[in-house]
Parts: sequence; C-alpha cells; structure tokens
Amino acid sequence: MKVEVINPFLESVANVLSTMAMLESTPGKPSLKNDDIAKGDVSGIIGMSGANVAGSMAISFPKNVACEIVKRMLGDELDEINDTITDLVGEVTNMVAGGAKNQLMENGYDIGMASPVVVTGEGHSITHKAAGKRILLPFTTEVGEFFVEVCLE
Amino acid sequence: MKVEVINPFLESVANVLSTMAMLESTPGKPSLKNDDIAKGDVSGIIGMSGANVAGSMAISFPKNVACEIVKRMLGDELDEINDTITDLVGEVTNMVAGGAKNQLMENGYDIGMASPVVVTGEGHSITHKAAGKRILLPFTTEVGEFFVEVCLE
Repeated sequence: MKVEVINPFLESVANVLSTMAMLESTPGKPSLKNDDIAKGDVSGIIGMSGANVAGSMAISFPKNVACEIVKRMLGDELDEINDTITDLVGEVTNMVAGGAKNQLMENGYDIGMASPVVVTGEGHSITHKAAGKRILLPFTTEVGEFFVEVCLE
Repeated sequence: MKVEVINPFLESVANVLSTMAMLESTPGKPSLKNDDIAKGDVSGIIGMSGANVAGSMAISFPKNVACEIVKRMLGDELDEINDTITDLVGEVTNMVAGGAKNQLMENGYDIGMASPVVVTGEGHSITHKAAGKRILLPFTTEVGEFFVEVCLE
C-alpha cells in the first residue's frame, strides 16, 4: 500500500482527535500487521468501496482512552463502556474515514463509505480480510495508546 | 426497512450455509434490534455503500457453531478460534453479502461492497451506527443459533 493512501488516515486521525477532543496524538511507526494483532475494548469499523478500491478501517481504543475522549468531548465521567461511548466512537470513526476520503479523492481515489459499526468486548481483536496489505498504525496520547488499522486492495 | 431489502439477506444466509457447509438454517422472527444485542464469539462484518444506500451487515457465531461450519466445509476438527475460522467466517460473510447484493440489484438497489472484517473475542457485541433501523435475524441450526444483523439507510 502506498504512502499516499496511508497518510490521509494518519492525518485525519490526528486532526479529528485534536479538534474534537483536544487530544493530541503522535503516530508511531506504521507496520504491516500480520500476527501482530491490535486488541481493543471498543473499536469503530468502517467499510470503504469504490471503482478502484475496496477495504476497511478500524480504530481500536482501550477503555480508558475511550472514556477520556468522552470526557473531553462531552464532559461525562464514565468508567463503563455504554451507548454514549459507542455513539462517540462511531462518530469519530465516521469523521476520520470522511477526512481521509476527501484527501484520497484529491489523490484520484474514488471511494464510497459504508456506515460505521462499533464492536465492544474486552480484549477483542480484529482481522481485515481484504486481499491487500494490512497496515497497523499505533498512536500515543498523554492518556494511553490506541490503534488504527487500514486495509485497502 | 422494507421486506424487499431484508429478504435477500435471509435467503442468502440459508443458501450459503446449505451449499457450502451442508448446514440447514431456519430463520426466526426478525426483530428491530434496540437494546437487544446479539453477542457472538466470532463475527464477520461487511460494509455496503452505493448511490441510494449505505449500511452494514454482521453475522455473529458462537464458537461451537463456527467450529462446526469449519468441520463441515474443511473437515478440520477445531476447538479454538484461529486463522482458519476467521478466514472462513470472512469468506462466508463475503458470500452472503454478495448473494444479497445480486438480489438487491435486481430490485433496483445499486450497492458496492467493502471487504469483510472479522472480529474475535468471547461475548463481544456489535452496534450498527447507520441512521436506518437495525434488524436482528436469528437463525437456528441443528448445532445451535447464530445471528445476522442488517442496517441500511
């Protein structure tokens, strides 16, 4: 997968969290995700399809990072994963994919976005089954790490 | 959501499992999924988007039903969720969505399919965040129940 496909996701994640939650995130080194499985407690997943591309993106948060984002965006102090968190993770996923999509369209990729799905369950893991390479993007914030995975073919 | 949108998924699930795994499945009563959350141990999720539709479909299997499908399709006796199972669930998800898509296109819906994502983790749950209604379709087989959820807007 080309850098021009990955970068829009990297930038969009940082933009959305910075703008919406005042949470600065620093991308780590992208890696090809093989056995290296990101586990999360709450994940937003969104499918993408278009004339010349099909794939999926997931953002996996540990519970404490998801709660911190809710606190910063809505002011709610939560310690359990509930509808407020899944709504917010769905919204963040939508915004990240939307931002990346706009950038990708400027680069000549014609992408349609599906609607997001949010998965909850302690320590679940996600496997993308697109034929393309899976890229794992780790992000560090002052409240913990989270992971973005992109797979486009 | 109209019956003409739901029926292709019902039919496609039954067709795929019957043809590929010689597993007969009987659909139960579809319900609007609100608090009623289907939990599974391994789920295939696929996004769909098109000119007049966006949404997602998920198929959630308990571990024993997923293992039985692997046994019937590949002859492997498994008791843990591994790559063989996630590959197969991804494949089944693809085939079910593909079958439903073909039927929907005959009904005038223009749908693009994303690539499938497979989630594993004991007792995880899935929330579709499309604006449309979420429909939960329970299926019964001789080896146990599983659930299909469809959300299209």
